[in-house]
Amino acid sequence: MTPDWIAADWGTSALRVWAMRGDSVLAEAQSADGMGRLGQDGFEPALLRLIGGWLTGAPLPVIACGMVGARQGWSEAAYRAVPCPPLGLPFHRVEPADPRFTLHILPGLSQTTPPDVMRGEETQIAGFLQGRPVFEGTLCLPGTHTKWVHVRAGKVARFQTCMTGELFALLSGQSVLRHGLDEGWDDTAFTTAVAEAAANPARLGTDLFAIRARGLLGSFAPGAARARLSGLLIGLELAATCAIWQGGPVVLIGAGGLSRHYAIALSTLNCTAEVTDGTEITLAGLCAAHRLLKEAAT
Amino acid sequence: MTPDWIAADWGTSALRVWAMRGDSVLAEAQSADGMGRLGQDGFEPALLRLIGGWLTGAPLPVIACGMVGARQGWSEAAYRAVPCPPLGLPFHRVEPADPRFTLHILPGLSQTTPPDVMRGEETQIAGFLQGRPVFEGTLCLPGTHTKWVHVRAGKVARFQTCMTGELFALLSGQSVLRHGLDEGWDDTAFTTAVAEAAANPARLGTDLFAIRARGLLGSFAPGAARARLSGLLIGLELAATCAIWQGGPVVLIGAGGLSRHYAIALSTLNCTAEVTDGTEITLAGLCAAHRLLKEAAT
Repeated sequence: MTPDWIAADWGTSALRVWAMRGDSVLAEAQSADGMGRLGQDGFEPALLRLIGGWLTGAPLPVIACGMVGARQGWSEAAYRAVPCPPLGLPFHRVEPADPRFTLHILPGLSQTTPPDVMRGEETQIAGFLQGRPVFEGTLCLPGTHTKWVHVRAGKVARFQTCMTGELFALLSGQSVLRHGLDEGWDDTAFTTAVAEAAANPARLGTDLFAIRARGLLGSFAPGAARARLSGLLIGLELAATCAIWQGGPVVLIGAGGLSRHYAIALSTLNCTAEVTDGTEITLAGLCAAHRLLKEAAT
Repeated sequence: MTPDWIAADWGTSALRVWAMRGDSVLAEAQSADGMGRLGQDGFEPALLRLIGGWLTGAPLPVIACGMVGARQGWSEAAYRAVPCPPLGLPFHRVEPADPRFTLHILPGLSQTTPPDVMRGEETQIAGFLQGRPVFEGTLCLPGTHTKWVHVRAGKVARFQTCMTGELFALLSGQSVLRHGLDEGWDDTAFTTAVAEAAANPARLGTDLFAIRARGLLGSFAPGAARARLSGLLIGLELAATCAIWQGGPVVLIGAGGLSRHYAIALSTLNCTAEVTDGTEITLAGLCAAHRLLKEAAT
């Protein structure tokens, strides 16, 4: 069986591709050729290294989401403004040098007030809605830049981004706090910090250095210190985003440790979040995009 | 004229020394041999490279403040707990291999609740109090880790540390925000951000990424973005420390651009701060320490 299209999830740090026939996966491959390590001329060769063997003769559509459409990506795909469905035509069409495929980049979403953008998460949201078309409430997609997304009537109504993951990586890996942390964890230290930061966000200004001071004064286990740092940052995030998650159902996308921490943090603030396994929702979103493209062509 | 003691300001990134006779400077020298680049065996050679030519025969006292007394320094000097005068005997005595000098490291200060520590700033505070012995109010020492210090009756009553400078360096230099900043500045963007963050500290959770989003959406000058990042972080800091600076006189130590930004930020919140030139207050503090040592010896 030969593929009739190719799906591509192309983020900052990785490229993942699937050879597809309708919604069925025939083959898949991945590499570390994310946008972050590619120059302008590197995108097409990086893609061909993975999909070259799948290309026959007639041009196959490749549908791609993520940072491949950023300003530093292969070709910039203009944002679509919310409120809008997570996917919508036209996609951003790019002509590659190789005639055996065509490239369709899914646009990200933008919001004017407050200013915000996403690229790639719109496809995950679309994938989630494939299985839950009447969902109304808040999706949380934890990551380097966690997205909080309010969904209503199949549309992204509004969203907020918190760079909590990036802040945690910088503070735990490169700031003076790194001397007092290790890879350990302490749930109580985490929930205490979440509650404190959410109740009094201003304290973050002094509470960060206090982690270091407690360690120097001899009374803070490195794993508890790491959990406290994470808790302070996620507590601030929950205070900043409460207007989007309070009162409605909240679904956390992803089954990993980070989603578990977000679920615990939300429960500390009396919000019970559903945690769903996010595996393959990006592919489900790319399949939805493929159907849109086919419908438009017929 | 030959020196009768040597003063040393030995921080993380620099070493500065003065050949002294009483309170008079006979000579001075400096190098980039801060604690941060020295291993355990590197401290004495680094000091001798600067002061070797000043040493005659009889052992000269070297009085040093700063990170040289940290756990990763030459020898750890235990903290003194506040409330206490900024300087107090005994100093931490270290025996060097070279018999031509003795080393006295000034202890830093610690606070149990909330946990906090300082090393080096206690000497600056002592130096400030040499010229203003009856000062009562708040000193602010801006830097990588800004210190807010409440002084009363010649003692450090309490203090708070904010790692705002380090956060700004990490976010502006290494996070995704770096793509939208340059070396420019915009006072209005700065004061607007200070006021917003101080009034609603929780918003920092989402306001940081919004800087990037505004840039991507085409409406944010890179200099204004940099000023806004600084303003958000300093606004959070002022919210976190308001209990220590509100109502009393505030003196900012240092005449550089950073102190100017703190003064503008405080004025945004209706606090008029005095800005003093902090040049040589560390040396004034080391001179005060030398007098304490001499008095104790007689």
